Amino acid sequence: MREPRRRDPDRLLPADPTTRAVARELYRAVAGAPIVSPHGHVPVEWLAEDRAFSDPADLFITHDHYVTRLLHASGVAYADLGLGGASADPREVWRTLARHWHLFAGTASGYWLEEELSGVLGIDVPLGVETADAVYDTIDARLAQPDFAPRALFERFGIEVLATTDDPLADLQGHARLAGALAGRVLPTFRPDAYLDPDGADFGQRLERLLAAESAPATFAGYLDALAARRAHFIRHGAVSTDHGVEDPATLDLDEGSAERLFAAIAAGAADADQRRAFRAHMLFQMARMSVDDGLVMTVHAGVLRNHHTPTARRFGADTGHDIPVRTDFVRGLRPLLERFGTARDFHLVLFAVDETVYSREIAPLAGFYPSVYIGAPWWFLDAPDAIARFRSAVTETAGFSRASGFIDDTRAFLSIPARHDTARRADAAFLARLVIEGRLDDQDAERIIVDSVGDQPKRVFKL
Amino acid sequence: MREPRRRDPDRLLPADPTTRAVARELYRAVAGAPIVSPHGHVPVEWLAEDRAFSDPADLFITHDHYVTRLLHASGVAYADLGLGGASADPREVWRTLARHWHLFAGTASGYWLEEELSGVLGIDVPLGVETADAVYDTIDARLAQPDFAPRALFERFGIEVLATTDDPLADLQGHARLAGALAGRVLPTFRPDAYLDPDGADFGQRLERLLAAESAPATFAGYLDALAARRAHFIRHGAVSTDHGVEDPATLDLDEGSAERLFAAIAAGAADADQRRAFRAHMLFQMARMSVDDGLVMTVHAGVLRNHHTPTARRFGADTGHDIPVRTDFVRGLRPLLERFGTARDFHLVLFAVDETVYSREIAPLAGFYPSVYIGAPWWFLDAPDAIARFRSAVTETAGFSRASGFIDDTRAFLSIPARHDTARRADAAFLARLVIEGRLDDQDAERIIVDSVGDQPKRVFKL
Amino acid sequence: MREPRRRDPDRLLPADPTTRAVARELYRAVAGAPIVSPHGHVPVEWLAEDRAFSDPADLFITHDHYVTRLLHASGVAYADLGLGGASADPREVWRTLARHWHLFAGTASGYWLEEELSGVLGIDVPLGVETADAVYDTIDARLAQPDFAPRALFERFGIEVLATTDDPLADLQGHARLAGALAGRVLPTFRPDAYLDPDGADFGQRLERLLAAESAPATFAGYLDALAARRAHFIRHGAVSTDHGVEDPATLDLDEGSAERLFAAIAAGAADADQRRAFRAHMLFQMARMSVDDGLVMTVHAGVLRNHHTPTARRFGADTGHDIPVRTDFVRGLRPLLERFGTARDFHLVLFAVDETVYSREIAPLAGFYPSVYIGAPWWFLDAPDAIARFRSAVTETAGFSRASGFIDDTRAFLSIPARHDTARRADAAFLARLVIEGRLDDQDAERIIVDSVGDQPKRVFKL
Repeated sequence: MREPRRRDPDRLLPADPTTRAVARELYRAVAGAPIVSPHGHVPVEWLAEDRAFSDPADLFITHDHYVTRLLHASGVAYADLGLGGASADPREVWRTLARHWHLFAGTASGYWLEEELSGVLGIDVPLGVETADAVYDTIDARLAQPDFAPRALFERFGIEVLATTDDPLADLQGHARLAGALAGRVLPTFRPDAYLDPDGADFGQRLERLLAAESAPATFAGYLDALAARRAHFIRHGAVSTDHGVEDPATLDLDEGSAERLFAAIAAGAADADQRRAFRAHMLFQMARMSVDDGLVMTVHAGVLRNHHTPTARRFGADTGHDIPVRTDFVRGLRPLLERFGTARDFHLVLFAVDETVYSREIAPLAGFYPSVYIGAPWWFLDAPDAIARFRSAVTETAGFSRASGFIDDTRAFLSIPARHDTARRADAAFLARLVIEGRLDDQDAERIIVDSVGDQPKRVFKL
Repeated sequence: MREPRRRDPDRLLPADPTTRAVARELYRAVAGAPIVSPHGHVPVEWLAEDRAFSDPADLFITHDHYVTRLLHASGVAYADLGLGGASADPREVWRTLARHWHLFAGTASGYWLEEELSGVLGIDVPLGVETADAVYDTIDARLAQPDFAPRALFERFGIEVLATTDDPLADLQGHARLAGALAGRVLPTFRPDAYLDPDGADFGQRLERLLAAESAPATFAGYLDALAARRAHFIRHGAVSTDHGVEDPATLDLDEGSAERLFAAIAAGAADADQRRAFRAHMLFQMARMSVDDGLVMTVHAGVLRNHHTPTARRFGADTGHDIPVRTDFVRGLRPLLERFGTARDFHLVLFAVDETVYSREIAPLAGFYPSVYIGAPWWFLDAPDAIARFRSAVTETAGFSRASGFIDDTRAFLSIPARHDTARRADAAFLARLVIEGRLDDQDAERIIVDSVGDQPKRVFKL
Repeated sequence: MREPRRRDPDRLLPADPTTRAVARELYRAVAGAPIVSPHGHVPVEWLAEDRAFSDPADLFITHDHYVTRLLHASGVAYADLGLGGASADPREVWRTLARHWHLFAGTASGYWLEEELSGVLGIDVPLGVETADAVYDTIDARLAQPDFAPRALFERFGIEVLATTDDPLADLQGHARLAGALAGRVLPTFRPDAYLDPDGADFGQRLERLLAAESAPATFAGYLDALAARRAHFIRHGAVSTDHGVEDPATLDLDEGSAERLFAAIAAGAADADQRRAFRAHMLFQMARMSVDDGLVMTVHAGVLRNHHTPTARRFGADTGHDIPVRTDFVRGLRPLLERFGTARDFHLVLFAVDETVYSREIAPLAGFYPSVYIGAPWWFLDAPDAIARFRSAVTETAGFSRASGFIDDTRAFLSIPARHDTARRADAAFLARLVIEGRLDDQDAERIIVDSVGDQPKRVFKL
């Protein structure tokens, strides 16, 4: 069994000693700053109910498709991990992870998990077959303690703002209950994908439910009114943004008559593929229009083909590790939207990509002109130290630092939130230190930029 | 107010001390070399008339869409900067830049502007709200001095060749007037985009004007003759190249009959979108044919969607910061052209990209086979230290150094020319030094390569 | 004439001294490990017949399109190099290379050739005009010695496995003859492209020959049977994999009736472009099905447009330096195949790309979920130190190290095999050392990973 080891305090900082020294100073300036997390997927119930986290497997494995996917790729059956409603002994699931722990060497998931074990739970014993049970027991014991309950951790993590992601029909009672209960705020985010995409599961029923919820007529005007009403409901509960996950960020500007006719075909289930595509594109356009009206920041997470492997989706559901990025075209796709709303007063549109070729080619140039467009921080597969370095290198020379969104953790893995923000802070310190050493930035500017990037910047971009 | 600070003499060189020492030696070998600038946008009148530059705002801000775009993105109205014919007090415009100077931290524009202020104008006071007026006054005073007039700066910059970019109907009297007037040469470049693209503004009138200028019949043969005649006019005034800015580098080989029929439809304004696309593609093909005939180097700047935001284009005109890169396909697009002319004796085709994915995938492989194809230096959004490093890394292992074009500054910002060439020299020194330290190149080869790259190489590629 | 110089023992390792020290240790752990080469193009006859290599030009230049292409780009005619059946004095060809040796500075080809001259042939005199003849004579003398014959070099190189690439109708007698004759194994690889693509040269004749060879009926079922029979023949001769070189990795799942009808049209030469595309896509799908049945690992080398310059292909044949990468879409292209076979027991699908944008966007995410999918090592234009570094950076944070294929040399240049594997080992040592220094990996894990990557990993992936 290996020796326990302390995490390297200089981890993720550049190797060159002079650069590392500068990076260390920059990192120190933000290491303890409060966490602003304007986009993520933590279930609000966790905080609203404040129940102790379940077992280590449930907390670290079962719901983290970053982790389960790599186990799956190496031959572990999802059912053996307890996915898809299968029953699985948590301890066995944990042992499975421990047995495959070497797979995670060098990955972002592996790094975060080590950070969580060490930084949050105080466990520095390397994970492995021989230590699996001891680590499991230690985590299990910790989770039973009151200071590891969700709200206690929320406070310990120094979270100033945490946004959840919610269905438009959500009652948001959890958010209401949390108002004032914590030092930081917990805000809902309006995520209407399932109501905008006729190809989505149960679209017809959702459409009807949405109309019914707001007693709106079954017309396009009625549908838009219902959506606007739900947005207002979210705003009343503190929401500052809407989120849109799309395979293709296409938008389409339709006149009212065409839109009504299109809606009629869609609502009747009689629309062909071209019409369904047009509807999706027009709805994204309408979401921008509504944001111009009601002030909600619009975030677009584009370029992911969901549920690539249909048999897995059928058996185990969505978010089971086979959502795969595809090439993305923001420039032509968003043009109709930007022609109309790109310079609208106080409109904010944050673009997140998993096709990293768009950083230098599309997003930085767009954000370098349109006052509405912000460069979304590296997301999903790109939310890792090397990818963050490539991102900063790709966008900064064109658009500087001011057009970036600030980090978002985009996670359901509550315990990983500090690790993810810390990773971004270290990665940014590394990047900025290089610019300082290369004479492209002085250290005062570098410090101002990194401090801004973890506080005022996300607050400005997300109107917090 | 911050202290004045000297520019770091080692700026842009790598952090590692051993590598930096090698880079420093390489940089020294070319730091003072004459500037060969075979592609750019300085108005010939500036040099022909040699009038003192106007105010600091006019010189550094109003016409530099790299600068205005980032101000625009941060909420500054173009009209307030004096764009689109609006009147604006130059001092106020300058103050606006100073107030927003932090936006430019880490950008190429910010770096160049600091280089210009320090290197050309001797101003080391950091720009900011408190220093704005003093800096403005100092620049203003400098610009009034004879040694800051365009020709004096041309000589001081050590420019050996400077190419402008000109309309095919330009009389080139400015160039004629400059012949022999300067130690270096000022050459026109034939840029016929507006006469090749039926979707361009005023295309019909341009077509007629071109035919009229050369008394050519309104046939395709006549149109080609008129273009060839204008090229000959350019050659007589020293031109060595033509330049083609296209969204899509598609080419098409048509037989004479089809081309005549297509031209008839185009000239009659009766062509549909497919025909207009075919015409553009065939005209690019014809430009290559003419280059094979008359020896003009053909440069293609591809992959930019111009005027993304129509309302801004309508009010403020072209080149106002919303030309956005799109994905580019050189391999299939240029194939008809290369099938016919790719190995033609003495034909030079220089490919410039803003979609950097084509460097390793398309341009380096094409230039590594076709004797005509040269790898254009990083351009526009990619003309910056990190992007240059990515470029060298992407193309060198496949195509070495000999297939590259040498640096072009592509700028209208006359005072930024030394800074841009210096940046490229430093970035190349950094790249070469790394290869030396990694045992992939010896220092003699590295020095030969960097010396070649700023002198003989662009002269060979551009037939200077 | 320059001084002879020893190769830098630390070549390709990172500049930073601390990182270099770690990299050096990692490299040492694998520097002498046996070579596992599961994909390449060495003609089996060389080893079966074990004749001395011909002259230096034949060995190093004529058949190496990496070398001839760059000479061609610089104006050397292929005929003067002896291509296309032209006669050329080998010494003159060698002198041509020496005269143009500066073109190869910084290229992978130049690096490998220096490695071969120094490491295999013991020649440390720099190549150049003045040394050309002496170097030529030394090589020539070496090649005549028994210990430079193919089998002797095979043993000296420490090759444990060497895969060739073979036509489905190959009798594989060379492989049979070599069984047991060497310390390492020489295995055939089933490469059926010419039998799967109706647009390929002589497709009709090949189809008939294949059916005839296995006395199969001229139906689709018969054609599939014949292919399966040839695969079985390969398996009997030790084959572990099939290889598929495609421009577009599209796949298509057709029912039997449709496939039979499509085959009838194809066999009759009556298929249109859409049908031919469908046939290609369905055949790739069928190859996966057969791999599921017979266990052969399926490798796909995708995204190369072959024979870009038709006149050169006509005169000098295929593989003459103008195969050019194009954008590739693995995600949608392979989806039908992966829907059906992606989780099939023991199916291995290794994806090789020359469009490096797919590394982080497509291949790492696919390999991070599908147990069948492995990330092919950097290939062709990307098989070089910087490109390998970009590859590792692009895939590791998502998919770790376990999902990679291990290095393949993909080469016909037999003498370059040690140099290519050594390059990959050094590049991996450099990458891993950085992760260690950045606190992302401990040195024990790094050593385990690099040792695995040159031995057990390719053996697992290629079922050796």
